[in-house]
Amino acid sequence: MHALILAGGSGTRFWPLSRRRQPKHLLPLDGDRSLLQATVERLEPLIPPQRVWVATTAELLAPVRDQLPDVPAAQFLVEPVGRNTAPAIGYALHCMPAAVRSEVVAVLPADHRIADPASFRRTLGLAAEVAARDDRILTLGVKPHRPEPGFGHLELGEPLPRAEGLRRVRRFTEKPDPETAARWTAAGTHLWNAGMFVFRGTTLLAALARHAPQIARGLEAIADRPDRLQELYPQLDATSIDYGVMEHLDALATLPLDCGWSDLGSWQALAEVAAAGSDGNAVRGDATVIDARDNLVAAEEGHVAVLGVSGLVVVRTADAVLVMPKKRAQEVRKIVDSLRRRGREELL
Amino acid sequence: MHALILAGGSGTRFWPLSRRRQPKHLLPLDGDRSLLQATVERLEPLIPPQRVWVATTAELLAPVRDQLPDVPAAQFLVEPVGRNTAPAIGYALHCMPAAVRSEVVAVLPADHRIADPASFRRTLGLAAEVAARDDRILTLGVKPHRPEPGFGHLELGEPLPRAEGLRRVRRFTEKPDPETAARWTAAGTHLWNAGMFVFRGTTLLAALARHAPQIARGLEAIADRPDRLQELYPQLDATSIDYGVMEHLDALATLPLDCGWSDLGSWQALAEVAAAGSDGNAVRGDATVIDARDNLVAAEEGHVAVLGVSGLVVVRTADAVLVMPKKRAQEVRKIVDSLRRRGREELL
Repeated sequence: MHALILAGGSGTRFWPLSRRRQPKHLLPLDGDRSLLQATVERLEPLIPPQRVWVATTAELLAPVRDQLPDVPAAQFLVEPVGRNTAPAIGYALHCMPAAVRSEVVAVLPADHRIADPASFRRTLGLAAEVAARDDRILTLGVKPHRPEPGFGHLELGEPLPRAEGLRRVRRFTEKPDPETAARWTAAGTHLWNAGMFVFRGTTLLAALARHAPQIARGLEAIADRPDRLQELYPQLDATSIDYGVMEHLDALATLPLDCGWSDLGSWQALAEVAAAGSDGNAVRGDATVIDARDNLVAAEEGHVAVLGVSGLVVVRTADAVLVMPKKRAQEVRKIVDSLRRRGREELL
Repeated sequence: MHALILAGGSGTRFWPLSRRRQPKHLLPLDGDRSLLQATVERLEPLIPPQRVWVATTAELLAPVRDQLPDVPAAQFLVEPVGRNTAPAIGYALHCMPAAVRSEVVAVLPADHRIADPASFRRTLGLAAEVAARDDRILTLGVKPHRPEPGFGHLELGEPLPRAEGLRRVRRFTEKPDPETAARWTAAGTHLWNAGMFVFRGTTLLAALARHAPQIARGLEAIADRPDRLQELYPQLDATSIDYGVMEHLDALATLPLDCGWSDLGSWQALAEVAAAGSDGNAVRGDATVIDARDNLVAAEEGHVAVLGVSGLVVVRTADAVLVMPKKRAQEVRKIVDSLRRRGREELL
């Protein structure tokens, strides 16, 4: 079994800590190691670094490789530009030796948190068995523990034989409205789409050829003429693997993950998993907190003092400060967009 | 007429911008020059720098002198330690040549804002005439334009002849409760105590001898034995001129100031006088402000981005960040106290 780690990413959600050249997965947002390093480490012993492949962009190759010294150099696969996950996964599979491609590959995001790695590996190992034995494509879905309109959901279909919890996926759904999310969570009919897939590489490429032929043909052309990579890759449809392939598959199956997963999708999500004191404040770095509740305070450099505020994200880096309500954390991209419009490249 | 500028101060109210060695009056909180520089400049042409005296502490002497190159070097008067304003003023008067001491001296804080310097000089000049002619001690009071429980008040007594607006001061009051402040403001019976005094130096020293004999005797002892200054000065009662002298004077008079005065006593007070956009945000330095109202945002160094917050003070300096509600700005000293208790001298 091999792992393909998707380690691209643009670095806006955790601004000012994340930057274009320092996206979220390169940051130690959950412990001492970066999320990328944690992603690789938690695979052992199921998948040692010698069987880890990392898809990233030219801009991020150097820091990504520096963080993963145990992954063989030839297994860092560089997209000329980011064209979303369907081209990235297809291209990575084409780059692998044919022998690897025909084995089971798990596609994993580089920037999630998993509190219980052993449970995660058990599910991943089971998924690999099913994928190898039945030549089936699986997606790992997360058991919702709360209504979450912010995530895509997998609607569960009929149980499949020969693996506990294995179910057909009836359909991929867009992000539901809050009432729908609450109903689904109560009924237990859906899992969260976590962007984790397990399949034989050859099987995925066959599905790509069928459901995303523009991408598949483009990748074939690149395989024939690797010297034209820089010209051809940017012409591939920028489609996610979810919408380009997965939602078209009749035979897609899922196994439920119950491993303390978080996508750490925003400062708010980070605040939710960070250790908080009795006052609800999660504090990173050198801070003074007086008469304040439920804040995320992060001093990556220098000192941060807060008094009398609640529900805020307060972040200080070497060159910037962010102050916003936690519940509006998704809107940090408005700040990044504003800086970009004003040509403030040094802050991006 | 001479001016004695009181330029000591501890630097907690504008933390993290103000520090022990960089107190409020050395900062350019209102325009390009520091408050101290503005204090001296607004006296011209009534009082040129050649007749300005500056009382400060040993710790602050170098930066204070650097900021005022036109004030003669001999006119910087150094208190060994801060012992409040009664010793500071008495000691400064003792340091002046006898010929100066018998002339009119205006005692002025170094850290206030005055929007209309011409009006201020007119009142100051009139006060000097009264002080010289009648050998009277005057305090300049500010006409309240709103109820302000945060200030001491002067209760107005009967009108005095020979100067428009001149009134006896019936008594100094402590900070009133909000209802009392509102009543006084509506009735026009009180002025705010702004800590500005005009008198012949010899007259003030006579009043000091009568009402604060411990300080007066100590200052005489220092005058006799200047070599014992470091030993004797710290033994003087640490009393303000208001409580030590002014409130005991039957003959104290006042002239009303109506010159756009602010004591800039806190971040909130600064926010009130800072130019604010239509959204009520006052912004200093390099900032991104999105969907936010009524904040004071100050980036002395680096960038500050705020989104979706209101009524906050957000300040970034080279080594610290402060986030607190404007209306709790007085409590910034809790942060400074906390840092001091934890031995964080580098942040004080």
